[in-house]
Amino acid sequence: MDDDAATEILAATHRALCDRGYADVTLEDIAAEAETSKGLIHYYYDDKETLFAEFLDYLYDRYTERIESVEGEAPRERLVGLFETVLADGEGTAGEQLRTAMLAVNAQAPYDDAIRTRLERFDEFLLERVESIVADGVAAGAFDDDVEPAVAAEFIVTAISGAHTRRATVDRSSDRLAETMTRYAERHLVADGPTEVPG
Amino acid sequence: MDDDAATEILAATHRALCDRGYADVTLEDIAAEAETSKGLIHYYYDDKETLFAEFLDYLYDRYTERIESVEGEAPRERLVGLFETVLADGEGTAGEQLRTAMLAVNAQAPYDDAIRTRLERFDEFLLERVESIVADGVAAGAFDDDVEPAVAAEFIVTAISGAHTRRATVDRSSDRLAETMTRYAERHLVADGPTEVPG
Repeated sequence: MDDDAATEILAATHRALCDRGYADVTLEDIAAEAETSKGLIHYYYDDKETLFAEFLDYLYDRYTERIESVEGEAPRERLVGLFETVLADGEGTAGEQLRTAMLAVNAQAPYDDAIRTRLERFDEFLLERVESIVADGVAAGAFDDDVEPAVAAEFIVTAISGAHTRRATVDRSSDRLAETMTRYAERHLVADGPTEVPG
Repeated sequence: MDDDAATEILAATHRALCDRGYADVTLEDIAAEAETSKGLIHYYYDDKETLFAEFLDYLYDRYTERIESVEGEAPRERLVGLFETVLADGEGTAGEQLRTAMLAVNAQAPYDDAIRTRLERFDEFLLERVESIVADGVAAGAFDDDVEPAVAAEFIVTAISGAHTRRATVDRSSDRLAETMTRYAERHLVADGPTEVPG
């Protein structure tokens, strides 16, 4: 299998989905975007459902790589860095594309097991990541003893999910939300109360 | 115009959308659900886009009625009551149907001005409602002086939006979230710290 061609089709799927949305995008659109033929798409992917499932795996790899690349030694730096990474805003950024693409496939989740299973992987990845940062912070004494990592993670992941939904549907900037989330973390998780985050 | 027939078409749109999702639902499906003809749907609504715009206005009226019916004298009771109303969970409830339906149309928002404008009305309604409750609470001394109503409302509405998205896409219960939100409000807004909310 020619990996480059298959990957280019997935990248083209991303662009076509951002332009048109899941309901309106066709294999013809994706073929045009990839400058290839519908036949070649069918050669790699049996149908639109298979293509979209593969597309979500492709996005998942990029997404987890970006999140794992967040740097910082201290738990609070890692948490703030994570907020900045997943809430990064602006027209045409990777974050904006991801949100729009996710939103497009989100709508299919209640009706499509393959899509739902994959969206659950995104959700679980972020949940585990946040929970582990918060647990590290509690263990290190950087976050309050009475913070329950699982509960805090659930709340944070829910707010991030809402930020993506609201950014894509009602055009609310998530930049502002990144600030609010940071303030929430500074005020409500950090053991010694509100202070400035370094750099 | 026969209001009953037009309203029955909107109710049928809701059911068809919950069953199939926006991408797959057709005017034929809606006609079958309403036990009427596609011709009659076209008589009331020019096309699928017009029908969906009217459908969102219909949902908006039901949604705002439900939120306005939340009782309670004190700001904290009103806030907790609002969380319970918008996060009410369970298969087949009005809340669950609303979420699924909203999710279906959310995906169209980036590509359709009429839909986006209407979703903005939902968002602004909830934002103003929460901000006004929080502002009342601060003014009455029930919430902390240093709570900024607009910032708290933005955070709360974002978390609610995320709860709806996660409930519909990855099947995370929002019952649990209602508890977490209440705990957030109790812990972080209420002036005298964590206490029990009157039943």
